[in-house]
Amino acid sequence: MSADTSAPVFRGVVPPVATPLLPSGDVDLASLRRLVDYLIDGGVDGLFALGSTGETAYFTDEVRVRIAETIVDAAAGRVPVIAGAIELTADRVIETSRRLIAAGVQAIVTTAPLYTINSQVEIAAHFRRIAAAIDVPLWAYDVPVRVHKKIALETLMDLASDGTIAGVKDSSGDDVGFRRLVAANEAAGHPLQLLTGHEVVVDAMGLAGADGVVPGLGNVEIEGYARLWAAVEAGDFATARAEQERINRLFEIVFQVSGLSGDATGVGAFKEAMAQRGIIDHATMAQTVEPIGADARAAIGRILAALGLQAETAA
Amino acid sequence: MSADTSAPVFRGVVPPVATPLLPSGDVDLASLRRLVDYLIDGGVDGLFALGSTGETAYFTDEVRVRIAETIVDAAAGRVPVIAGAIELTADRVIETSRRLIAAGVQAIVTTAPLYTINSQVEIAAHFRRIAAAIDVPLWAYDVPVRVHKKIALETLMDLASDGTIAGVKDSSGDDVGFRRLVAANEAAGHPLQLLTGHEVVVDAMGLAGADGVVPGLGNVEIEGYARLWAAVEAGDFATARAEQERINRLFEIVFQVSGLSGDATGVGAFKEAMAQRGIIDHATMAQTVEPIGADARAAIGRILAALGLQAETAA
Amino acid sequence: MSADTSAPVFRGVVPPVATPLLPSGDVDLASLRRLVDYLIDGGVDGLFALGSTGETAYFTDEVRVRIAETIVDAAAGRVPVIAGAIELTADRVIETSRRLIAAGVQAIVTTAPLYTINSQVEIAAHFRRIAAAIDVPLWAYDVPVRVHKKIALETLMDLASDGTIAGVKDSSGDDVGFRRLVAANEAAGHPLQLLTGHEVVVDAMGLAGADGVVPGLGNVEIEGYARLWAAVEAGDFATARAEQERINRLFEIVFQVSGLSGDATGVGAFKEAMAQRGIIDHATMAQTVEPIGADARAAIGRILAALGLQAETAA
Amino acid sequence: MSADTSAPVFRGVVPPVATPLLPSGDVDLASLRRLVDYLIDGGVDGLFALGSTGETAYFTDEVRVRIAETIVDAAAGRVPVIAGAIELTADRVIETSRRLIAAGVQAIVTTAPLYTINSQVEIAAHFRRIAAAIDVPLWAYDVPVRVHKKIALETLMDLASDGTIAGVKDSSGDDVGFRRLVAANEAAGHPLQLLTGHEVVVDAMGLAGADGVVPGLGNVEIEGYARLWAAVEAGDFATARAEQERINRLFEIVFQVSGLSGDATGVGAFKEAMAQRGIIDHATMAQTVEPIGADARAAIGRILAALGLQAETAA
Repeated sequence: MSADTSAPVFRGVVPPVATPLLPSGDVDLASLRRLVDYLIDGGVDGLFALGSTGETAYFTDEVRVRIAETIVDAAAGRVPVIAGAIELTADRVIETSRRLIAAGVQAIVTTAPLYTINSQVEIAAHFRRIAAAIDVPLWAYDVPVRVHKKIALETLMDLASDGTIAGVKDSSGDDVGFRRLVAANEAAGHPLQLLTGHEVVVDAMGLAGADGVVPGLGNVEIEGYARLWAAVEAGDFATARAEQERINRLFEIVFQVSGLSGDATGVGAFKEAMAQRGIIDHATMAQTVEPIGADARAAIGRILAALGLQAETAA
Repeated sequence: MSADTSAPVFRGVVPPVATPLLPSGDVDLASLRRLVDYLIDGGVDGLFALGSTGETAYFTDEVRVRIAETIVDAAAGRVPVIAGAIELTADRVIETSRRLIAAGVQAIVTTAPLYTINSQVEIAAHFRRIAAAIDVPLWAYDVPVRVHKKIALETLMDLASDGTIAGVKDSSGDDVGFRRLVAANEAAGHPLQLLTGHEVVVDAMGLAGADGVVPGLGNVEIEGYARLWAAVEAGDFATARAEQERINRLFEIVFQVSGLSGDATGVGAFKEAMAQRGIIDHATMAQTVEPIGADARAAIGRILAALGLQAETAA
Repeated sequence: MSADTSAPVFRGVVPPVATPLLPSGDVDLASLRRLVDYLIDGGVDGLFALGSTGETAYFTDEVRVRIAETIVDAAAGRVPVIAGAIELTADRVIETSRRLIAAGVQAIVTTAPLYTINSQVEIAAHFRRIAAAIDVPLWAYDVPVRVHKKIALETLMDLASDGTIAGVKDSSGDDVGFRRLVAANEAAGHPLQLLTGHEVVVDAMGLAGADGVVPGLGNVEIEGYARLWAAVEAGDFATARAEQERINRLFEIVFQVSGLSGDATGVGAFKEAMAQRGIIDHATMAQTVEPIGADARAAIGRILAALGLQAETAA
Repeated sequence: MSADTSAPVFRGVVPPVATPLLPSGDVDLASLRRLVDYLIDGGVDGLFALGSTGETAYFTDEVRVRIAETIVDAAAGRVPVIAGAIELTADRVIETSRRLIAAGVQAIVTTAPLYTINSQVEIAAHFRRIAAAIDVPLWAYDVPVRVHKKIALETLMDLASDGTIAGVKDSSGDDVGFRRLVAANEAAGHPLQLLTGHEVVVDAMGLAGADGVVPGLGNVEIEGYARLWAAVEAGDFATARAEQERINRLFEIVFQVSGLSGDATGVGAFKEAMAQRGIIDHATMAQTVEPIGADARAAIGRILAALGLQAETAA
């Protein structure tokens, strides 16, 4: 795996595309296409298919391929598409990755091994084995809240040094560690693109040196992130902060749901707000995630109304 | 899924079958057959294929099926075979389960969802969705050190009440919780078989009311566990303890490896000892687990020698 | 600190003495004396003052000294008294220890440092510094659920080898680790007394080689533990198990409280049951622990009634 | 406890004052005075005595009082002094607080209870009990890496609403949570001063709305933080970032120590650098923290040299 001048670049605003479902549980392909158009029209720089926000862990590979094909087809080359290949270990990630690459995605992102108990040396070997088996750029996804281990800074920079990985999606929740990663990456000549997954501190992460953001909340309203990132790129942090603070009032939708799981309250709130705005048709969650209740739906509606976001007249 | 009088019963000594590999990384089918014979000749009551000790997380489904077919074929009906279907979420577990059932296994065991962030209600729905989709008994595998969540006692007993699960493999490391589970299971009429995965406290777990054990160390020496469990069943705890203490001196092989990961030191030590005893041909670990070093191999040899276990003349 | 033939020995049943409080929050000295008599009459081998069950963390040293003096005075030499000196670090533990020794306790037990971030080498130094500064036996209290670090087996045996510690109170919740500790202690000639804090698995811990138990639940009913431990000592594990199972039905009192903290549900249930039995006058908890509610109190009453334990006619 | 117009305000740069020690382990009062002068001359807005960087957990109250008196005396009213009262629970915190207030400090900061297992309701009661017993402003110190529980946003805002706490020192490592706290505090009319303890992301935290910083690294070089915060206040984030990035190269001193504990590598590196710069006389650590080795000392020297920071000609 060596860098390629024609390789797609993922930086700026690269939202994780949610996966709209029909009440039957099948993928709502029409809503998915509409969502892709909404995001691209809103000014995104790339699409992150099959991430945690996309509920990818809940789908079989057959369903994942259908989702990837639909996103790639709907994007129609307007922006590049990177896809999550979330599986237990290297050989299984490789299988899933090849299916997604055949479906047209231009880069793969995966985590450290799941379920197994590995050292950093073994985590590095895991990424190297995958990179050697696929012919598109590989990204590392650092999300300890789900993987229950952190990919060490040294591991990431080691994987950068020989071109094993092209970037990192950082959802580590560790702003101090991210700052050190930015500094190490700069010192090494910026081999990695570093995207943050923390949608409520994008102004601060932009100041800290992030190359972009993967905002789950962007599925609900993408225009704000486009403005926010433009301000970051312009070095206008006062404007970036003002936009971030507005966005963060919208993010409060995820705190309206009580008593349910993290997946139900996070993606569940996003999907409900998307449905209320008309971006997708149904707020249906993947099996076996619990639906949110009427109170939470009403509270989400009030937040949307307060921000003037009730009805999106998407494409 | 309702209980079936012809359903296989898993109790007593049900070792998790290790997966011997060739230096190439392919499954060593000849060694695997020899291992199955060794275990059955040693008096086991069932076989647990594709568990953590079997390194199942590292294998593709194609490889898993080959392993399951080989174990089932080698067992030849002498003892029943249960197999782990370790995957992220229900729909993916169902796919893997169906492949393993087609390969001949007589029951499936799986964990709470991996990677996702779920409530106990969602964990219960996960098991129910799987049970509804397969036609063999389903077991729950509680292993928080790998899954990073515990299946609650209430969830397990709820899943027992309607026949969703037939048993639990408990590797929770929580003897207090296990004791409460035993009591709740007795109060409910013993709907569940409860097997412990903690191979160094089998005498105590037997006293506490376990129905059996899934001893990874049994791959290295199975006869001791047969004697130990017979003593437990006879209520002869002094004998059980003496046997356990002898076994525990053997277990020290896993503490001879330093600086490596949990997977490398645990299964790695088992495989090395198995190879030294001649039970399998190679100590090769699954990709991308680090091999143990020469010092650890020598130390393991000394422990085997001290216990008179150096050369097993298996079938 | 070298071993002393006249040193007090703590083994068998050594309950952590609860601290009865008046509704004002002051120590209820009369109830405390009655409790001590109840425990000694019930056949205990020693008393563990100022442990977690004794709510010691909530009291100033002045109050702790009053509690220790009362327990020592009430015990009147019938059984030895060991006291917890729970403080952040060595020099602070030493201060508290000296006060408690002056109050008459015959041994001190303490944890690894709190709040600080230390290595095992530093934890060992911590115990050595304390042992060098006091003239009674020192015990190690391993309770990761409160201290958030585990004292390593190697550290404990190292501290045993030079007589720094005389015993371990193990509340680690790690039965596998405890089994290894028992074996290492035996191999070293039994320098340590090993007491388990897990009151619902005493039969199994006795089988595993524990030297005794520190049962918080013994404050509610001590006679069962005396019978249980006698059976363990006699090698009659069937009787031990039957007694343990009866006791464990009583332990269900701690699961009747919902929505409160661990301290409120654990010690809170004990105190409520003690008050209902007449062993102490009030169930008042230390500041700032929430009291349990009327529903939980009624449920505890039903459990006591079902076991015929409603009214203890203590001294 | 109600707000007082004459109450001291802690905002801007409020470094946690390290505690210089003599090789004997006694406090090096002369170095401590010199350090206080160095910090105040460098432009700090307040001093945070007896925090984690001050190794306060390792000292008896007698020693703590001596440290507080010295800092207060050396500060001589030039800047206000807030002191950590780090103890297990409310009544013990109150005792220590009163001693420190008698020593002259103008505000107290403490954590949620240590060792105990409490709910958020109990944590709130803990702070209320302390605030009611002292006559200076109380701050909450949120440091889950040491306390092992997080103070919830709702708890903090509840404690703000009735004036129980005047501010928060946030060392939660949770930038997303901190951002929500800033927003909630603004919505409530800014009742709390919010200081971050994360010294390597001060520019980003300033952008996010922090009122100031408690930089441990400021003991090594304070001038940079003064410049950084001035830039933040001026809204000049490009300058703030440049200064932060320079500072972060200095922070690499804490990563030069390997194999030791968190306390040894963090404060240990600070003290070594302070000693090399001549700000204090000795790098001696509190008992029982391990000293760093010669290699680490040399590496720290090289980092100081590279930044032109080798010899501070302090007062």
